[in-house]
Amino acid sequence: MNKIKVGIIGATGYVGAELIRLLMNHDKVEVTAIGSNSYVGKDIVDIYPSIGYKNNMICIENEKVIDMCDVVFTALPHGVSEKFVIKAIKSKKKVIDLGADFRIKDEEVYSKWYGVSFIDKILHKKAVYGLSEIYKEDIKDADIIANPGCYPTSISLPLMPLLSSKLIKNNNIIIDSKSGLTGAGRELSISSHFTEVNENITAYKIGKHRHTPEIEQNLSESCKEKVSVVFTPNLIPVNRGILSTIYCTKEDNISINDIHRKLTDYYEFKEFIEILPLDKVASLKNVRFSNKCVISLHENGDTLIICSAIDNMIKGAAGQAIQNMNIIFGIEENTGLKNIAPSF
Amino acid sequence: MNKIKVGIIGATGYVGAELIRLLMNHDKVEVTAIGSNSYVGKDIVDIYPSIGYKNNMICIENEKVIDMCDVVFTALPHGVSEKFVIKAIKSKKKVIDLGADFRIKDEEVYSKWYGVSFIDKILHKKAVYGLSEIYKEDIKDADIIANPGCYPTSISLPLMPLLSSKLIKNNNIIIDSKSGLTGAGRELSISSHFTEVNENITAYKIGKHRHTPEIEQNLSESCKEKVSVVFTPNLIPVNRGILSTIYCTKEDNISINDIHRKLTDYYEFKEFIEILPLDKVASLKNVRFSNKCVISLHENGDTLIICSAIDNMIKGAAGQAIQNMNIIFGIEENTGLKNIAPSF
Amino acid sequence: MNKIKVGIIGATGYVGAELIRLLMNHDKVEVTAIGSNSYVGKDIVDIYPSIGYKNNMICIENEKVIDMCDVVFTALPHGVSEKFVIKAIKSKKKVIDLGADFRIKDEEVYSKWYGVSFIDKILHKKAVYGLSEIYKEDIKDADIIANPGCYPTSISLPLMPLLSSKLIKNNNIIIDSKSGLTGAGRELSISSHFTEVNENITAYKIGKHRHTPEIEQNLSESCKEKVSVVFTPNLIPVNRGILSTIYCTKEDNISINDIHRKLTDYYEFKEFIEILPLDKVASLKNVRFSNKCVISLHENGDTLIICSAIDNMIKGAAGQAIQNMNIIFGIEENTGLKNIAPSF
Amino acid sequence: MNKIKVGIIGATGYVGAELIRLLMNHDKVEVTAIGSNSYVGKDIVDIYPSIGYKNNMICIENEKVIDMCDVVFTALPHGVSEKFVIKAIKSKKKVIDLGADFRIKDEEVYSKWYGVSFIDKILHKKAVYGLSEIYKEDIKDADIIANPGCYPTSISLPLMPLLSSKLIKNNNIIIDSKSGLTGAGRELSISSHFTEVNENITAYKIGKHRHTPEIEQNLSESCKEKVSVVFTPNLIPVNRGILSTIYCTKEDNISINDIHRKLTDYYEFKEFIEILPLDKVASLKNVRFSNKCVISLHENGDTLIICSAIDNMIKGAAGQAIQNMNIIFGIEENTGLKNIAPSF
Repeated sequence: MNKIKVGIIGATGYVGAELIRLLMNHDKVEVTAIGSNSYVGKDIVDIYPSIGYKNNMICIENEKVIDMCDVVFTALPHGVSEKFVIKAIKSKKKVIDLGADFRIKDEEVYSKWYGVSFIDKILHKKAVYGLSEIYKEDIKDADIIANPGCYPTSISLPLMPLLSSKLIKNNNIIIDSKSGLTGAGRELSISSHFTEVNENITAYKIGKHRHTPEIEQNLSESCKEKVSVVFTPNLIPVNRGILSTIYCTKEDNISINDIHRKLTDYYEFKEFIEILPLDKVASLKNVRFSNKCVISLHENGDTLIICSAIDNMIKGAAGQAIQNMNIIFGIEENTGLKNIAPSF
Repeated sequence: MNKIKVGIIGATGYVGAELIRLLMNHDKVEVTAIGSNSYVGKDIVDIYPSIGYKNNMICIENEKVIDMCDVVFTALPHGVSEKFVIKAIKSKKKVIDLGADFRIKDEEVYSKWYGVSFIDKILHKKAVYGLSEIYKEDIKDADIIANPGCYPTSISLPLMPLLSSKLIKNNNIIIDSKSGLTGAGRELSISSHFTEVNENITAYKIGKHRHTPEIEQNLSESCKEKVSVVFTPNLIPVNRGILSTIYCTKEDNISINDIHRKLTDYYEFKEFIEILPLDKVASLKNVRFSNKCVISLHENGDTLIICSAIDNMIKGAAGQAIQNMNIIFGIEENTGLKNIAPSF
Repeated sequence: MNKIKVGIIGATGYVGAELIRLLMNHDKVEVTAIGSNSYVGKDIVDIYPSIGYKNNMICIENEKVIDMCDVVFTALPHGVSEKFVIKAIKSKKKVIDLGADFRIKDEEVYSKWYGVSFIDKILHKKAVYGLSEIYKEDIKDADIIANPGCYPTSISLPLMPLLSSKLIKNNNIIIDSKSGLTGAGRELSISSHFTEVNENITAYKIGKHRHTPEIEQNLSESCKEKVSVVFTPNLIPVNRGILSTIYCTKEDNISINDIHRKLTDYYEFKEFIEILPLDKVASLKNVRFSNKCVISLHENGDTLIICSAIDNMIKGAAGQAIQNMNIIFGIEENTGLKNIAPSF
Repeated sequence: MNKIKVGIIGATGYVGAELIRLLMNHDKVEVTAIGSNSYVGKDIVDIYPSIGYKNNMICIENEKVIDMCDVVFTALPHGVSEKFVIKAIKSKKKVIDLGADFRIKDEEVYSKWYGVSFIDKILHKKAVYGLSEIYKEDIKDADIIANPGCYPTSISLPLMPLLSSKLIKNNNIIIDSKSGLTGAGRELSISSHFTEVNENITAYKIGKHRHTPEIEQNLSESCKEKVSVVFTPNLIPVNRGILSTIYCTKEDNISINDIHRKLTDYYEFKEFIEILPLDKVASLKNVRFSNKCVISLHENGDTLIICSAIDNMIKGAAGQAIQNMNIIFGIEENTGLKNIAPSF
């Protein structure tokens, strides 16, 4: 089989850099073009020296990427991807969008939270939400993947099967998520300045984070009812990883063992999802540098407490995007994603 | 005025070391004896070199400390303090116990969570719970102070005035606390090993932490009803500080502004409590190395979200203990505790 | 005695913020004016919330500070202080300059390394180099203090007495210094971005750091011969502290014991300098958040290895500046600077 | 080709765990036995949960490992490996020893630094020192590999070609190395306790570290003269990585360009060695989680300053061991070692 030609639009941000790093060791693809807005003509290794001078590649204009590949990953701020996606679809290319442009299906909700409108409403209907383990069948035939946000991935993977099977109540869901700083990207700001972050933890955008409608959309779809959540993200002084601590209420007469069995069965054949034994606690250690989501279950009276951990750059971004590409192209789903989380 | 003679029993643990550090710059006291179990005859500066070789002091046996001072701080594991307290009270000395032995008033609850019983039941009735800002009047006349736990301090300070004034409901209180590693002390364990903690966050003792009954006792006393909480502590890779994120429900027709006004008024003349303006977020930065508790308020629908930050070693342990000593001896409450939190 | 009126020009940088924090607890001074370039009219607590809303102060224009105080601290980038110093001296105010403008006595050297010239050459002759323990007698009568750089402080304190007493050779001095990120200040740059710094260590400006001529000037003055050094600074993922590891050669027939005795005697009555026993190693723990310089001595054949640690923001900047102010005004030298380094 | 059967003796230490992690994704080998002293019968995933419950393996007695594999890795404290190596060689198995037992060729030197003697002197002569890029030809035919120490790897790779080609002088070599905490392993000690390490840097075993004779042996072999070095290791608050800063003297009339050309040529076809362009600085970022050694060159007068970075757990231990196994078995040298260093 010929190698799949891959292009990356927005390759010089953190998500782009992580895509490059992972794809360079994916033996079924070839990265044929990396695009940038601000670094055209510059070598990627001068921006990210850890890629290595033997792996150098020159950034071209984002606009020129599509013609040079079979599948294009767009890693751009929200509101910027759509025009590239339109062009790619016209050129019969597959697109995996790692931004937010295609994640929210209800335009009104999207406009309210993101302040922009859909350009091509029909295109939005074609986009498949790429939560790989849940929507694999739809992903296989997709032309456009809306790759999920990092927080929503960590939250939806444990909650969706529990809500659809009515094992937990769909009101009173409180989520306290903790994220490493790569989630804030490469853009400079005082809130990402080393001395401000180190030895600190801080909540931010309490009740106002843009991933909220995406979480609510997923949970609502699972239980066929409108779900609202209380969502508080925190920044912790680590580079990678999200730990979402989810507080919800068990349905009457449902035990934690019932819930544990359900989740274990649901994900039995899903390599990247691990439901821990009932006495263990999921933490970032379980997932850093891997494409896994590791989940543990706990209880306190009627309250079910779920700890769900992912690497925000991999399962929460570049890794899940590659997993979706693998599904679309009929490749082994774990190709390029086999790295085991190091313990230290 | 003669300087107050201070002794520390259990001086070589982290809490003891922090007491020494702070008391050395308290100009109304003199540390006359530091006791240890395992380091008798050893110089404290060899255990904690940052104290400085010009401030050296030799550890004596814990048993000998009481006779050498006017007030004794006991910084021992739970179950070990009581015998020292009995002896100190017999010798007419004041005692400030930084362990858990006198915190829980209900012996049954204490036995259930700590696995030990009260030795001298009458003594327990004499102990005053040393949450300085709430119980100052009782503290003034106390002979025994049960110095509060670190998590309970961060949680009770914002919640008690709100519960007693019925601004929030007393059910459905969920607390997600994040603590630095000094909270785990100097004892070696794999869970405090650098490479295990660094670049990680992990919840522990979910629903089973021994500070739970202390939190519930405080909250129940505030609203004169039995309160249960869901409490999840987490370890984060920082040395100092606790951030407690508290989720509760506003009472009907109560706005966040009402709540903000109440807390601001309640703590108006309390130097160590700071209620932030409504658009700010409390974080460890606000409090590290100071005796402050800094609180911010947020909302999401009916849910009130409180961020409450303290330095676990100071307001959560040694600092509040010194504050209580100052109150007992009629000294300016902030003596020895004026350090302003550094921004970096 | 009336309180000394203190003004700070450039109060919103890290050094300015540290001056404010320390001076607020200095009981012989009152901060009467804080100046800024970019934050005029803004409250300092909005920039540095840890200062506390009860300690708020409004920033005024840098130009207006001098008239409102007895002594002015200038905490500005090099090349910017001199004009303020000229004005302050005309107004008969004392000035402590924490920038580099007055540190280098030889204009040619200054121009070569800093790319700017002296404006008022006579003024430069009046400036006293404020290495407190070495130049205390000169500092007492100074109108202008050139407050030393952080690296030069950590390096000169151990080396100067050894060079002047001919216990070490003055050639082949190699210095490998490690600094926390506060040394890079509050200005945003990719090299201070959390995810770039965390889990990394990197050397920078190897052989080209602007503190090199200051180090060489101090050492040359000590031994009355021109000294050159090899100086490599590194950034390590901590907030505060400099550890300078200095490699030099013992003079013939000089033992490490001779050297240890010399330094111990030289600094015997200097509260802020601690020479460790010969089997101990100086580290950041010994000095963080204190005004101390802690020094340990080691050997490997003929090579003497010195570990010298300071808190770059205190002994390396704001603390030494306050120490110099105390000396000038005849106050106890340690006023406002008694904080003991915490062990954790 | 059948998969190579691999056994690990001492699999539950950090080096053992890293071997397991890497070998699980090595597609030419199968891990058939993992041995332990203290965890016999226990599942490795209970010690290192990040390995994942789908990759579980039970630890057997170290003694039983050899019979179950073609090649055995010994990851044991010094003095313990030799008896296993003797047994393995008798059983005609290949052995890669990651301890120190076979690194030092001169028994007298070994005894002086390690306090133990050789058991089987002939065996020691058979051992090949496994610095892969330098001794590849010897490694191909080896039965026993003495896998190099982490510090010696980072130091020898840049220095050996320069010494053998006489581009630098072989006296006055000063090395200031900085290591992450994984180098100290999983054993509990106060010097690896989180709160002691975090926000600190400290030198240790100055002039006394056991890697010193190994470094001196390598350098002496290169220039055919006895070389002594000054070696100071430091612990920095990161998990992984060693940065060695090496100070040495250029030979007369040799420029940094000559040296840069030499190293670049010498390692031209060595995938894991990267000589940076002359204006770049090598740091941990370049190498973490990869098998690379990245080297940068700098100068200050006659002094050449080399920054050499490796991941201590990979190129400094498990990775180089696998590289050596690949060479012995005639597999592509980079098999299982292709991971690119992440930038964050």
